[in-house]
Amino acid sequence: MADAKAKVTVGIAGCTGAVGLEIIKVLSNRAYPVASLRLFASARSAGKKFETPFGEIVVEEFSVEAARETQVLFLAVSGSFAKEHSAALTAEGGPLVIDNSSAYRMDPAVPLVVPEINAGAIKDARLIANPNCTTAIAAMALWPLHTAYGLKKVIVSSYQAASGAGVEGMEELKVGCRDVLDGKEAGHKIFTHPLPFNVIPHIDSFDENGYTKEEMKVTNETRKIFELPDLAVSCTAVRIPTLRAHSEAITVETEKPVSADEARSLLAAAPGVALVDNPAELQYPMPSTATCKYDVEVGRVRQSLIFGDHGLDLFVCGDQLLRGAALNAVLIAEACKVCKHDISTPTHAHLDTWDADVGC
Amino acid sequence: MADAKAKVTVGIAGCTGAVGLEIIKVLSNRAYPVASLRLFASARSAGKKFETPFGEIVVEEFSVEAARETQVLFLAVSGSFAKEHSAALTAEGGPLVIDNSSAYRMDPAVPLVVPEINAGAIKDARLIANPNCTTAIAAMALWPLHTAYGLKKVIVSSYQAASGAGVEGMEELKVGCRDVLDGKEAGHKIFTHPLPFNVIPHIDSFDENGYTKEEMKVTNETRKIFELPDLAVSCTAVRIPTLRAHSEAITVETEKPVSADEARSLLAAAPGVALVDNPAELQYPMPSTATCKYDVEVGRVRQSLIFGDHGLDLFVCGDQLLRGAALNAVLIAEACKVCKHDISTPTHAHLDTWDADVGC
Repeated sequence: MADAKAKVTVGIAGCTGAVGLEIIKVLSNRAYPVASLRLFASARSAGKKFETPFGEIVVEEFSVEAARETQVLFLAVSGSFAKEHSAALTAEGGPLVIDNSSAYRMDPAVPLVVPEINAGAIKDARLIANPNCTTAIAAMALWPLHTAYGLKKVIVSSYQAASGAGVEGMEELKVGCRDVLDGKEAGHKIFTHPLPFNVIPHIDSFDENGYTKEEMKVTNETRKIFELPDLAVSCTAVRIPTLRAHSEAITVETEKPVSADEARSLLAAAPGVALVDNPAELQYPMPSTATCKYDVEVGRVRQSLIFGDHGLDLFVCGDQLLRGAALNAVLIAEACKVCKHDISTPTHAHLDTWDADVGC
Repeated sequence: MADAKAKVTVGIAGCTGAVGLEIIKVLSNRAYPVASLRLFASARSAGKKFETPFGEIVVEEFSVEAARETQVLFLAVSGSFAKEHSAALTAEGGPLVIDNSSAYRMDPAVPLVVPEINAGAIKDARLIANPNCTTAIAAMALWPLHTAYGLKKVIVSSYQAASGAGVEGMEELKVGCRDVLDGKEAGHKIFTHPLPFNVIPHIDSFDENGYTKEEMKVTNETRKIFELPDLAVSCTAVRIPTLRAHSEAITVETEKPVSADEARSLLAAAPGVALVDNPAELQYPMPSTATCKYDVEVGRVRQSLIFGDHGLDLFVCGDQLLRGAALNAVLIAEACKVCKHDISTPTHAHLDTWDADVGC
């Protein structure tokens, strides 16, 4: 356990959203050395009381001044909010800021970090970007394969849960499902079409090349995190009627020969990965088992029918709110030097320890 | 209209299943020249009365003798049933048999047919196999691309509906969804795990190479239908909580250069395909729009980020019970010479005409 002197003051801006709430839980479950926790939100939510593992906390209206009193500040807010306040927040003497939005991810001056992969990119940065959820989940499986075999091509098809659109997205799906079961039409405000019993191949807005911004995030962010600016990565990002945990079917071509068996051993030992690949026992990655789990489930590892001994097919499933957001953000905080507190890069053992206790 | 002399006696074995019921509707909606319709099922269902567009029909217990009295017989039953009876059914003087099971699909002596693609393969066959649903739906989009550009590689990730497991699969999903919404656990008998709000990367049993039989059907059947025995095709087949209509994310590499715009024009003109590709108007293939539609929806056509000007990404969605089964089977019947009745290969216009009337 960290001693009292090493404890830090933590703030969360956007504490009432799905990601903000998960950050509170992860801080507690991973025993992050919180001296005190301050929760910031809009004026509308200010004054609300939250029962947390750190005691009852009254939500404060966000102000740069108040937020600068923290040592580590998580931004679980919009990209425009992050852009508006980041300079003032990070000015000399301000907190370490970990931003969950897409605002700074592709900024060359801002590290984009999945700690198990590129904690070294943090260096002395005071603003660190947390990657897109689909990207972070895929990266956990892709990085070990890259280090061993070298990635040439990566083709991703995603199966993304309603949680990607926050608590409101999950609620819209649940209400709509009941409506459909009751013979009524499902309404929709959060998603572009009704999601119950449907599939929507449209997440975020469209770029001029016909890909969505979500799809291009997978391409561009993977390249940045892996420091492989020319890696061939494509994605088809699809919203499906699940509540939480994104799945992804991934095909890779590798530089070096690879066997499915060898890849399985490698993935089983990789930090933040749970190999779930025992079809005979009906074990493979699924939202029902990956939800609320820190590790990303990887399975269905097969020798590619397209790239032969230079390729694999695999299926991954990870909790979008954990690896895709809150967990990754807290792991970034752990990997950073904050005042005197310095936790080394998280290990697989860390993740295992807390799996059962997420309580989400 | 066909004249009375050209009408044929039609039988359906397995008339009480999802596919059997759809065949009755499609025969009516496409004005197939039915002289009389005979419905066959197991002893358990014999004697039941069905209201059909061809009048009230009493279900008969299946027997080879009775089934041989028909001129066109649709088998909407298991592969083992087909294997047990096909020789006796097709012996000299028997009906034209169209088998929806996988029993004969890869038999070199049996044509495997998507009529818009390879009606010519039927020749004088008296037993014709109807392809796997995921294969047939993908093939509608892939064939026009192949004829224009030559396919080199095809990578498919599927989003398959509960209807692939029949009426019982759809019912299990609906009951389970309500259970979950009511705070209870969903049970499962049809699927290997509860499907509500979940994703199951497991359809049909596993082959030794780690792929499922469903995935290998997409590889092997596409090769046979296209007469491209070496085409590189891989699939990850995934069950998702939708009721009807399968979606597929497809990446192709082509022999010749291809542009997304040109491919779109080509697909818009392709028989059995509806180009639904207007992201600005939020139009793309979805189960909610493809369900009960004869045409397979194709959209999200993009220049590949992996294969550059020699590749495309696309998204397709087709009604599993129609293009994936009943419609394709009836189109096969239409494409066959049955006694004096000879309907030429179905055209796009045919399909359009009946879209609105499926009434499923």
